[in-house]
Amino acid sequence: MSSGEDDLIARYFKPLATTPGAFGLTDDAAILQAGGDDVVVTVDAIVEGVHFLPDDPPDTVARKALRVNLSDLAAKGAEPAGFVLTLALRQVNETWLAPFARALGEDADQFGCPLLGGDTVSTPGPLMISVTAFGRVPRGRMVQRGSAKPDDVLVVSGTIGDAALGLAIRKGARGPLGADVEASALLVDRYRVPQPRVALARAIRDHASAAMDVSDGLMGDLSKLCRASGVSAVVEAAAIPLSEPAQSWLTADANVLERLVSGGDDYEILCAVPENRLADFELAARSTGVPVTVIGRFTAGEGPSRLFGAGGREIPLDRQSYSHF
Amino acid sequence: MSSGEDDLIARYFKPLATTPGAFGLTDDAAILQAGGDDVVVTVDAIVEGVHFLPDDPPDTVARKALRVNLSDLAAKGAEPAGFVLTLALRQVNETWLAPFARALGEDADQFGCPLLGGDTVSTPGPLMISVTAFGRVPRGRMVQRGSAKPDDVLVVSGTIGDAALGLAIRKGARGPLGADVEASALLVDRYRVPQPRVALARAIRDHASAAMDVSDGLMGDLSKLCRASGVSAVVEAAAIPLSEPAQSWLTADANVLERLVSGGDDYEILCAVPENRLADFELAARSTGVPVTVIGRFTAGEGPSRLFGAGGREIPLDRQSYSHF
Repeated sequence: MSSGEDDLIARYFKPLATTPGAFGLTDDAAILQAGGDDVVVTVDAIVEGVHFLPDDPPDTVARKALRVNLSDLAAKGAEPAGFVLTLALRQVNETWLAPFARALGEDADQFGCPLLGGDTVSTPGPLMISVTAFGRVPRGRMVQRGSAKPDDVLVVSGTIGDAALGLAIRKGARGPLGADVEASALLVDRYRVPQPRVALARAIRDHASAAMDVSDGLMGDLSKLCRASGVSAVVEAAAIPLSEPAQSWLTADANVLERLVSGGDDYEILCAVPENRLADFELAARSTGVPVTVIGRFTAGEGPSRLFGAGGREIPLDRQSYSHF
Repeated sequence: MSSGEDDLIARYFKPLATTPGAFGLTDDAAILQAGGDDVVVTVDAIVEGVHFLPDDPPDTVARKALRVNLSDLAAKGAEPAGFVLTLALRQVNETWLAPFARALGEDADQFGCPLLGGDTVSTPGPLMISVTAFGRVPRGRMVQRGSAKPDDVLVVSGTIGDAALGLAIRKGARGPLGADVEASALLVDRYRVPQPRVALARAIRDHASAAMDVSDGLMGDLSKLCRASGVSAVVEAAAIPLSEPAQSWLTADANVLERLVSGGDDYEILCAVPENRLADFELAARSTGVPVTVIGRFTAGEGPSRLFGAGGREIPLDRQSYSHF
């Protein structure tokens, strides 16, 4: 006898369980072989109406669910090893589930992170997808949050603030982009489908003294890293890397700066690099094709991160990050 | 700057992160050291209104969330190593969260399974708790579902059907227990707080050829094990171990048998033991204090499990297990 739940798993998710340790999702548990490495574990959930919108396409929802976790692994210097999935569904809607599973499988392939297992439950509430992802690092080499040092250089990957603007557009903000459909689409895409910096994992492991990914806003996440490390940090607003659409928006409306640096959903990597490792880090990063930019410096003394504008004037922020509660 | 989410984690969950690899929940990820072992990974979520009732006490909800996963690890012959938690909450209600976290911590201590990390998200829907738990087994020694052999003996731990009756009582069923408050409470407690058979892990690893835990109903889960193993199985209804209240209920109402064997939430272990290992298995189990009972046998040929009553008469079942969809 086969239940609907088992059919669903066999049809949509078994093809993603490409590693022998997943037992084709027919067992209660999976095996993750660590070899001599440390297993790095991270968990992130996304909820309909909170982290994605009810009419976001299912393939982008799948990619976001996995990628926000891959982003954490990359920031820790870990190579992806696999993931498990909890899927809370109102109903089995195959027109939603088929593209969801297909996109999840494509990302699992692309990033070398096979599905190891999962649980599918029914809920009367919003869709929710929780992913626990696993990576490997050589023993003792996970890059931590709490190990930044005063005078380390502050570096971020990619561009900051696009996703926050993309979400604003999806929620009806017009902004100054007006009829530039392409620019708006780029921002919305950055909100829907993060680009986890998996390729940077090795460079971060080899050269960064501390790292985390930016999920809740650049300034707030930086403050978390500072608190964990017992240091503070200063950021030069003008140095923060922006995409062309974000730069246009900021040029037209200077008030959008706070949204850019506190809005979250960037899934870029924020790291502390000792000055004497910076050149090697930049070289290693360049070979991956992921841009990295120096935006400030860590400083002695505990305290939240601070943002400075033209002429060394500090820019006050009403908030530094997004909080769920 | 500290967000409400971080405060919540620091106050309620940091005390549960008792292993160095959890970094006091201040990092994006945790480290699980595998040594030379295989890491066994399992995930199970529980949803308010589906797996627990809105007025179930928070401490029992916490214990159930962790224990259903510990039950999976035990069935795989794995020793607990840690867990991560996804908590989807409507709001931060401290009178709920404080006892929830305290009970979770007590169970984490009792079963040697420290919290490694988590994610807390807001949801407008029902509460949901997803746990991914990790165990360790010597390399290649995880006990699988798909390796039962014809003529293996079929064994279960504990008693079967209590939780299904407990749920029926919670949903208003009167049953024949009438004024026996103690008996009813025992059944409800079995529904709310599973007893994961962690103590049996070693005996299962050493002697069972295949195993799984009974979460969706004895007969249905047995059929899953049969399908994975390419065998069938026969169960003697009279041999199924019942608690005193369940036995009284069955004596008064023979129709309740189907609910007992298909109702689920037992979190007992179902395993296949080669006949020549049975005595050693029973000895090893006895030393743990967990009762185990032979209830049938695996047979050659694929097919669902079958239930037999007095005089070798087959007992037909309308359904074998609980399905979410």
